[in-house]
Amino acid sequence: MNIVDIIIKKRDGNKLTNEEIQFFVKGVTDGSLADYQISAFLMAVFFQKMDVEETACLTMEMAKSGGMVDFTDIAGFKADKHSTGGVADTTTLILAPLVASVGVPVVKMSGRGLGFSGGTLDKLESIPNFDISVSEEQAIAYAQKTNIVIMGQTADLAPADQKLYALRDVTGTVDSIPLIAASIMSKKIAAGADGIVLDVKCGSGAFMQTLEQAELLAGIMADMGRHVGRKVTAVISGMDQPLGMYIGNSLEVIEAIEVLKGNVQGDLLEVSLVLGAHMLLLAEHVSTVEEGKALLLGQIQNGEGLAKFKELLLQQGGDVNVIDDYSLLPASKCKKEILVEQSGYLNEMNTALIGRASLETGAGRAFKGQELDFGAGIILKKRLGDYLEIGDILAEIYAETEKMCASAGQYILDAITVDDTKGELPPLILKILSE
Amino acid sequence: MNIVDIIIKKRDGNKLTNEEIQFFVKGVTDGSLADYQISAFLMAVFFQKMDVEETACLTMEMAKSGGMVDFTDIAGFKADKHSTGGVADTTTLILAPLVASVGVPVVKMSGRGLGFSGGTLDKLESIPNFDISVSEEQAIAYAQKTNIVIMGQTADLAPADQKLYALRDVTGTVDSIPLIAASIMSKKIAAGADGIVLDVKCGSGAFMQTLEQAELLAGIMADMGRHVGRKVTAVISGMDQPLGMYIGNSLEVIEAIEVLKGNVQGDLLEVSLVLGAHMLLLAEHVSTVEEGKALLLGQIQNGEGLAKFKELLLQQGGDVNVIDDYSLLPASKCKKEILVEQSGYLNEMNTALIGRASLETGAGRAFKGQELDFGAGIILKKRLGDYLEIGDILAEIYAETEKMCASAGQYILDAITVDDTKGELPPLILKILSE
Repeated sequence: MNIVDIIIKKRDGNKLTNEEIQFFVKGVTDGSLADYQISAFLMAVFFQKMDVEETACLTMEMAKSGGMVDFTDIAGFKADKHSTGGVADTTTLILAPLVASVGVPVVKMSGRGLGFSGGTLDKLESIPNFDISVSEEQAIAYAQKTNIVIMGQTADLAPADQKLYALRDVTGTVDSIPLIAASIMSKKIAAGADGIVLDVKCGSGAFMQTLEQAELLAGIMADMGRHVGRKVTAVISGMDQPLGMYIGNSLEVIEAIEVLKGNVQGDLLEVSLVLGAHMLLLAEHVSTVEEGKALLLGQIQNGEGLAKFKELLLQQGGDVNVIDDYSLLPASKCKKEILVEQSGYLNEMNTALIGRASLETGAGRAFKGQELDFGAGIILKKRLGDYLEIGDILAEIYAETEKMCASAGQYILDAITVDDTKGELPPLILKILSE
Repeated sequence: MNIVDIIIKKRDGNKLTNEEIQFFVKGVTDGSLADYQISAFLMAVFFQKMDVEETACLTMEMAKSGGMVDFTDIAGFKADKHSTGGVADTTTLILAPLVASVGVPVVKMSGRGLGFSGGTLDKLESIPNFDISVSEEQAIAYAQKTNIVIMGQTADLAPADQKLYALRDVTGTVDSIPLIAASIMSKKIAAGADGIVLDVKCGSGAFMQTLEQAELLAGIMADMGRHVGRKVTAVISGMDQPLGMYIGNSLEVIEAIEVLKGNVQGDLLEVSLVLGAHMLLLAEHVSTVEEGKALLLGQIQNGEGLAKFKELLLQQGGDVNVIDDYSLLPASKCKKEILVEQSGYLNEMNTALIGRASLETGAGRAFKGQELDFGAGIILKKRLGDYLEIGDILAEIYAETEKMCASAGQYILDAITVDDTKGELPPLILKILSE
């Protein structure tokens, strides 16, 4: 078998055999394929796509490219959740303790963020001394004791994906549905959860900008998971505005704690409850979504969710005092208020531009391995449908320099569209693909 | 400027600016771009193409990526010729001495072959002691004395093309019209000829399988050359059967000598005369193609062409005795006659399969840098339109082992289609795009 023939076969729109895909993934993993051949293959896939069978094979080969995590020693149904990435999307920090607090184990391996803000790991690391390096054995011990662990991926988790992801990022081949699906699901499958709730974001701040695309990706990912015996629910949720009001690393930790304290309502809470309820449903801990949502909301009201979050911090070395004193979290030097310049109804937010504003503050990474400014970010003061008066505070920007604040502020002003009449609000939950 | 943005811009079907193309070629040349980014870009170009302006810019930047050869010290109009590559295409060895013998300097830089047989350099190197390593100064001295020099490319001729060509070959991005055009023309422009005759092959044994594709490539290449002040004629010639009857390295040398001796008529002679006549026309040495063809044919009849070929060998160290004694040329150990298995008119030859047969004998390269068997190859005994009787000799195969002979023979049998009624013969010269 010859990689050039395989590249040309895909380039010319033909379906690859399982053997050809195995050959490719093996060559990626053992280093026998040259990076330039891998990237040419990825670009060919970008244009010619892969069908469900090809994508399933790619996913499984990538999952098996390293060690498969074995969490069978943790009693009960292990639920995991994955988001395709949106702005101010802090649901993990909220739903993981809530779900764990009712007795369903949450063993979550997270990644670092690339783009507008950090990932879950980055957010947790903004809490002084929080340690995300947890071994498989340690994770089992933690979960057996507290039902919760949030950790970085083990080094040999789906190494083929690590290699492909790094290459895609620097070769313009990120936005490919089969490659996104295989990347996400290979890690989730390798990471050993019994059930996975996928949060596929759709809208101006997401990879998938149309419901059609989002459904396609969600459907393929769900198929991949079920194909290998995992229970999967895919929720397609709106990303036509940031999910929460806080964007950044320590800022999103603050908002998550506020939600867990019961101080914040709204879209971030709602999506966290929906996703968490579906995790409970997969685990057969509840029999309807409504029952699940009510149960989780109760865990906020009775303080159990926050208590579990505190347990998580204690377990992994994080400073629990941050819960009551946000000033213990990193904060950027400069702050700038962005004022409304035109009155009217806030009818549209180009959420990708808001994400770009966050990148300007230093809260996100423009390239892999970049240091984040944990204290940087944005607090939005307005949501879609709000009426804006000139001079209202639209957002607060936090960054290391005035210049960065100004640059971020400009992106935010560019991102919004106001109008005299109030537009229709986009739906928060667009579709749910369950078993 | 950022290469990932440029890759994505092309990937999404947008036109690149000159600055972006310059940035790309500079990065290829100085090594600042990673190979995996270059190959992703090439695959994006494969799918999204480049328009004439983009291709012209790419061509010129590649031409300027190394030293531009300066042959102004050679008096007169310097004519060059380039073929896009076909089977049994030995025209250079015939027309170069013919054209030089009437007083028009031919200073030709050639490449090595990749595929079914060697390139002009490989063929010449099958002549004992022929030296293709000629410096620019030496080339000028040779041309001033004999009007002819055939040499390898200088090391820094269009280094960006050398790099891109090598990468394209191993990443499935060879068959792209703008990339082929830029590769050929960048070298021709850098190599300093005043006029270039392009022989664009079209048919089952060529890159370009339809007249439409061939015209597109020919038109773009001619545009590129004229854009920088070179006179260009593009001849589109048929490759629905091998041009000559001999395929291989020393075998093609023998056929070229036979043509120069006046012993061989037919398509190879005809195309050599047409291309040579257009070189004379560009040099304004003749005023019509017919006049040029008659002049060159006369140089065969009066022995001047063969004398010039002998001068070329003497000049560059080649053993001139081969001209009268072909047994001094390398010859393979085994010979096998392939007999006709089905009677009828020879109506079709899959010329790519004939090329593949040649590769099986060891006459061609499957990968860059592979050693050739100079003595290997095929002598065809039949042409399209011939009536075949069972038991007729279809071809003679020369190779190192019986097994290689048998394998090549099978490809030849697979390549031919016979029929009870005689089919139409494909045209030899399909189109000529002149100034």
